[in-house]
Amino acid sequence: MKITGTGIYIPPVIQTSEEIAPLINKTPEWIIKKSGVKERRVSNIDVDEMGAIAGLEAIGDNSPPDLIINASGVPKQTIPDTSIFYQKEMGLNGIPSFSIHCTCLSFITAFHTASSLIQSNVYNKILIISSDRGTRGRNFNEPESASLLGDGAAAIILEPSSKNNSNRLIYYKMNTWPEGAHLTEVRGGGTNKHPQDSETTADDNLFTMDGPGIYKIARKQVYRLMLNTLKSTQLKKEDIDLIIPHQASGKAVEAYIEVGGFDRHKVVNDVTYFGNCVAASVPMALVKSIREKKLKRKNKFLLIGTGAGLSAACALVEY
Amino acid sequence: MKITGTGIYIPPVIQTSEEIAPLINKTPEWIIKKSGVKERRVSNIDVDEMGAIAGLEAIGDNSPPDLIINASGVPKQTIPDTSIFYQKEMGLNGIPSFSIHCTCLSFITAFHTASSLIQSNVYNKILIISSDRGTRGRNFNEPESASLLGDGAAAIILEPSSKNNSNRLIYYKMNTWPEGAHLTEVRGGGTNKHPQDSETTADDNLFTMDGPGIYKIARKQVYRLMLNTLKSTQLKKEDIDLIIPHQASGKAVEAYIEVGGFDRHKVVNDVTYFGNCVAASVPMALVKSIREKKLKRKNKFLLIGTGAGLSAACALVEY
Repeated sequence: MKITGTGIYIPPVIQTSEEIAPLINKTPEWIIKKSGVKERRVSNIDVDEMGAIAGLEAIGDNSPPDLIINASGVPKQTIPDTSIFYQKEMGLNGIPSFSIHCTCLSFITAFHTASSLIQSNVYNKILIISSDRGTRGRNFNEPESASLLGDGAAAIILEPSSKNNSNRLIYYKMNTWPEGAHLTEVRGGGTNKHPQDSETTADDNLFTMDGPGIYKIARKQVYRLMLNTLKSTQLKKEDIDLIIPHQASGKAVEAYIEVGGFDRHKVVNDVTYFGNCVAASVPMALVKSIREKKLKRKNKFLLIGTGAGLSAACALVEY
Repeated sequence: MKITGTGIYIPPVIQTSEEIAPLINKTPEWIIKKSGVKERRVSNIDVDEMGAIAGLEAIGDNSPPDLIINASGVPKQTIPDTSIFYQKEMGLNGIPSFSIHCTCLSFITAFHTASSLIQSNVYNKILIISSDRGTRGRNFNEPESASLLGDGAAAIILEPSSKNNSNRLIYYKMNTWPEGAHLTEVRGGGTNKHPQDSETTADDNLFTMDGPGIYKIARKQVYRLMLNTLKSTQLKKEDIDLIIPHQASGKAVEAYIEVGGFDRHKVVNDVTYFGNCVAASVPMALVKSIREKKLKRKNKFLLIGTGAGLSAACALVEY
């Protein structure tokens, strides 16, 4: 399969760490040290409009896709799923659409699933959209996570590659360890802490995470995932041209350099100026890398990260 | 691919239409005439526990799956996705898991996606679980939908079939028409009507539907989908041994007989005694059909239905 179109929506409103500091009773220095985020974008439009802008840009002047997958962390609403609202906003009709959800790994999982659907000739042009507005779920009583989240959207088109073409998914792996089920949560929004229940609190509807708890499991498991990827593909670190990690935090991105041993210039860092955009982080970094020519055709790139649950996944791709 | 395991959870508590009538200011006769539902089950345990019971039954004494897909209509909570909680409840660990969401069509879409993942040799044993507790989201001020919803869960295991085996997915088709985006909704639970917004009402977090509006689009589109399925596969109605429709309502199930022209004994009707169990309706009816020997090996069956959005989908399978 081949990436044949890309789109991105970066909300125009910037919120600096100086601006957020008084809201969480911390200093800008504390925020930057703790989360690695200097600035984040705050969207005034909802996830469907954000995603539709990115989706339409990815389609461009070409024919519409034959499948739309929403690959976001948090939906617009419980029913129907967000893919419907993208299609509505894009002015399209009749195109099958559904959502794949595994929080911050939704894009990597959707990318892999779409590759499989293309390989088995079911669909020929798949639009994947990730759009997240994490700033809507910030809990200002939890300074670390509140300072991390940012908004953004990105989209790609996947099509079959021609036979004499090298574009392909080389390797994919995912694991989920439910011991981490409560490390990252929005407990509301479903049958668990229903808004109609008197014991459901305002905090239940906001994002909560145990940063150190996640990092403890994630560092070990992501390192193991990287080693296994290299072993399974018989590649060396030097053979990978670009690492596009989920922008979980400054510390999480830095770990690919300090623990993972990858060259700094090969590891994409967007977290400093965009924060953690949940599932949209990975495709935003991918699309930006393509546009900034950090990623060129025939390059090998690794999408990698962790998601709530706790899960870890990676996809090694030849662009 | 072949269905190699099945599981079901039918909550023990029955709520009759006589019991629900005073809650919605209607007579039991009105309920049965309008929704076709005489009884529905009301679960006292949450979707993850319900789904885990069905999942463990599907696994039985065999080895655990290498992928878990949650294919439900409404999640346990916003983050993480419900597949994590199934895995936790089942006492499993390390198995990749994620959710596929397109409301009532989640199971049919997951079934098709899983077939593709098996065909492309990525996974070899996929557990799909649908678990819905629609009674948690009933709006008693909307008598029609409140009288429709019921709770239940079901699970299947999919594995590759051997070469001399006829088990296979014969045909699959899905379409989505976003003109129906607001016909079936739970507007809360995401970024749209966030619980922290003062204008979000209690009703925004409950299920709402425009029954006649859905039926108007659905009847025409589902009929067209059936005709196209027969045409594409060069099969006749008589060649299909069992129709397993989404149990949307009594009227919706009856339409496969009255409009679709299928023999009554070939159309599974579970809605009378279980109501509309959202995404769990289709796999519950499938699992019950297998256990009651309505469906035998080498039979051709059609999973078909509509989902919020509005979408229609079908999968024609040789069991």
